[in-house]
Amino acid sequence: MAVYTDISEAELIAFLKQYDIGTLLSYKGIAEGVENSNFLMTTDRNSFILTLYEKRVDRCDLPFFLGLMEHLADKSVKCPLPIRRKDGEAIGQLAGRPAAIIEFLEGMWPRNPQASHCREVGRALAQMHSASQDFQLERANALSVGAWRPLWEMSSARAEEVERGMAAEIENDLVELEEGWPVDLPAGVIHADLFPDNVFFLSDRLSGLIDFYFACNDLLAYDVAICLNAWCFEKDGSFNITKGMALFDGYISVRPLDDAELEAMPLLARGAALRFFLTRLYDWLTVSNDAKVVKKNPVEYLKYLRFHRRIGNVGEYGYRGVE
Amino acid sequence: MAVYTDISEAELIAFLKQYDIGTLLSYKGIAEGVENSNFLMTTDRNSFILTLYEKRVDRCDLPFFLGLMEHLADKSVKCPLPIRRKDGEAIGQLAGRPAAIIEFLEGMWPRNPQASHCREVGRALAQMHSASQDFQLERANALSVGAWRPLWEMSSARAEEVERGMAAEIENDLVELEEGWPVDLPAGVIHADLFPDNVFFLSDRLSGLIDFYFACNDLLAYDVAICLNAWCFEKDGSFNITKGMALFDGYISVRPLDDAELEAMPLLARGAALRFFLTRLYDWLTVSNDAKVVKKNPVEYLKYLRFHRRIGNVGEYGYRGVE
Repeated sequence: MAVYTDISEAELIAFLKQYDIGTLLSYKGIAEGVENSNFLMTTDRNSFILTLYEKRVDRCDLPFFLGLMEHLADKSVKCPLPIRRKDGEAIGQLAGRPAAIIEFLEGMWPRNPQASHCREVGRALAQMHSASQDFQLERANALSVGAWRPLWEMSSARAEEVERGMAAEIENDLVELEEGWPVDLPAGVIHADLFPDNVFFLSDRLSGLIDFYFACNDLLAYDVAICLNAWCFEKDGSFNITKGMALFDGYISVRPLDDAELEAMPLLARGAALRFFLTRLYDWLTVSNDAKVVKKNPVEYLKYLRFHRRIGNVGEYGYRGVE
Repeated sequence: MAVYTDISEAELIAFLKQYDIGTLLSYKGIAEGVENSNFLMTTDRNSFILTLYEKRVDRCDLPFFLGLMEHLADKSVKCPLPIRRKDGEAIGQLAGRPAAIIEFLEGMWPRNPQASHCREVGRALAQMHSASQDFQLERANALSVGAWRPLWEMSSARAEEVERGMAAEIENDLVELEEGWPVDLPAGVIHADLFPDNVFFLSDRLSGLIDFYFACNDLLAYDVAICLNAWCFEKDGSFNITKGMALFDGYISVRPLDDAELEAMPLLARGAALRFFLTRLYDWLTVSNDAKVVKKNPVEYLKYLRFHRRIGNVGEYGYRGVE
């Protein structure tokens, strides 16, 4: 839930003079997104999302994020199109912050994802991976394997406040992941945060992917591993292999996974679980309770991590290959 | 900023089956309103506000609030119309809470109100007062003069945390207001919370009043006094008499104020300042910092209160009568 910066009608109207999108009729702060301030804005022509980028987003990364969305939309990957100003720029300045206007995307994110949703997500993820192969900009993944130990060290002293005895197993994971992390798998642009609240559906049909503000260059299969974590566990912490099957089926219907990617999947999934565990743990221990961000309990991801340690091969996640 | 209750697409679609408003295309929690959970919802026919009434709203009052909005809209007072279900009901149940769907109202609330806004607000307030004279339902004002002493007693022990020496002057205000509060002024349905964020404009034209969830039966002039507080002070605490003139001019162009109302205005304005001071003080001292409500500093209203104590007659607020 997030509106960090309010804006006045006068400054918004002045800002909109740079665009050719009609006359302002309303704007309301919306409670989605935890990094930025988002407004649902309507003009006499259409609806839009207005985003003010707050300090957690590096403004030097904005051309990558917005350029990627434009590149993907051009290639018919379902995602909202950034609106360019009359002068061709996609990024402006509003209330002292970088700001952009994005097409409004119809659809709802699934609060209770089903296997049918997982299949659609797998397909869309593979479409995104394929379509971004010729995207020219690059952005390193600031939260990949090399970042995990420093992140852990910022929380490790207090980690046992969350669960006693946890530190030793995390240290062990770090060693094994750092040593075993694959380097020569197919790489490209990954979404890196494709959780259910970033995927919109109209009935069972995927209407679009949103929130590309963690997108970066990394191993494509790692993005699949993130989705295994984000989509295939039930609320009780159990893994739903039917959803795993659907996710893989959807993905490989567009882009096959090679043997090395399949072999690496349990390690990648464990890495993905550790990555989200570590950022949640850090936020849990450091973000004050009066912040507008709803903190997510890191223990959920500790459970997933323990599950992945016991997985021997990708078939145990539901992968069945091409029929 | 408030979304206390999230809802799933499945339960929302089931809820919408009771209405004839088209097929759901999107819904987003919005960061407006501090009492309830509000969603901006679009269907293939129109946009709507979906409100889930949280526990601070007594569900027995909902027929009054929603009936009033319908009554006013019928009489061409600019306010959003509640949408009735196919069975004629305006109030349903969603996620365990009373819920209603209200027409979406175009417009923006003024972050920096000008005198022109004050004139429009005065006119709309008088239209509301006139149009509700034949509204059949009644609701007592739970926050009128009789409620202030009990409210004060819940905060008085800690009030000096906010400003030392404050208690004695509040005690004195309470005595004077309780003794002098008028009883035989014209009464009717008042909005009771007509702050700038509850009034929408399209350029300089008022497009509607919203948030009738404090509306009640009380002295009409008291509603004017609330608006003097809410609209005519500058951010530095000074009173802008040009705005006061505009507010009164707008109001009396629709409904004249009689001599007794004019004479009572300084006392009513002082009472209104005390009423908002007391609820803000209570929230300031008791609402935890991790609540989703942004707490408003009560000191602002303490300044207003001190200003009103020194006002001798309604002319000092800008009242000039009919030209």
